[in-house]
Amino acid sequence: MKVSQIEHLGIAVKSLDEAIPYWENVLGLKCYSIEEVPDQKVKTAFFKVGEVKIELLEATADDSPVAKFIEKKGQGVHHVAFAVEGLEDALAEVNSKGVELIDKAPRKGAEGLDIAFLHPKSTFGVLTELCEDPEK
Amino acid sequence: MKVSQIEHLGIAVKSLDEAIPYWENVLGLKCYSIEEVPDQKVKTAFFKVGEVKIELLEATADDSPVAKFIEKKGQGVHHVAFAVEGLEDALAEVNSKGVELIDKAPRKGAEGLDIAFLHPKSTFGVLTELCEDPEK
Repeated sequence: MKVSQIEHLGIAVKSLDEAIPYWENVLGLKCYSIEEVPDQKVKTAFFKVGEVKIELLEATADDSPVAKFIEKKGQGVHHVAFAVEGLEDALAEVNSKGVELIDKAPRKGAEGLDIAFLHPKSTFGVLTELCEDPEK
Repeated sequence: MKVSQIEHLGIAVKSLDEAIPYWENVLGLKCYSIEEVPDQKVKTAFFKVGEVKIELLEATADDSPVAKFIEKKGQGVHHVAFAVEGLEDALAEVNSKGVELIDKAPRKGAEGLDIAFLHPKSTFGVLTELCEDPEK
């Protein structure tokens, strides 16, 4: 598997309205997009710093994975997403090496990417997303 | 303040010996350096993915901040480090905007960088490091 870069960091926050001004006014980054992902029960806000996107995640329902994460661990980095070429092959490869898959096949994520999550118990605690831009 | 990129992600692991093979053999990244930082009571292993470094952190003492983090939250992303120009001015600026500083002045971190941490209660749960390469 060839990981080219970190595509984005997903960061769980209680409130986008409260967190966005910190990222804009303190860190000096610009929120360029807000998008709801109903499938994941989250609303997302995107920033870019160097080649990496920051994806702030606010839960839109009490049973959202992000709500459960915050309840257990508090606000903070929720997942790390790596850009790969050939997502299906990458999933098969990491699975053959003993990594448990949350998503056995790619599905659609924010910004039109094909994505799949690896289970953090196989990745030393880091909830890991592999993603590929189908238009590249 | 001008943040140019994510310099590194710090990731807390129980054992470098167990975690490094995952990063090398599954994700396909190469560990290029192992360094002890006595000041922080950690041993670190470095990888690079795109422009971002990954810094795995293993505690070298029970009272290491990394040991306490793992006890409380489990293994996973410990901090996000942003590269800035003019670290002292950046600290003064974020402090003037209400961010609590863990380090009121820059100190030496791994790889010879000047670093300072911001308190996660001021940064929506993300333990945040600002850093600057004094040789750039």
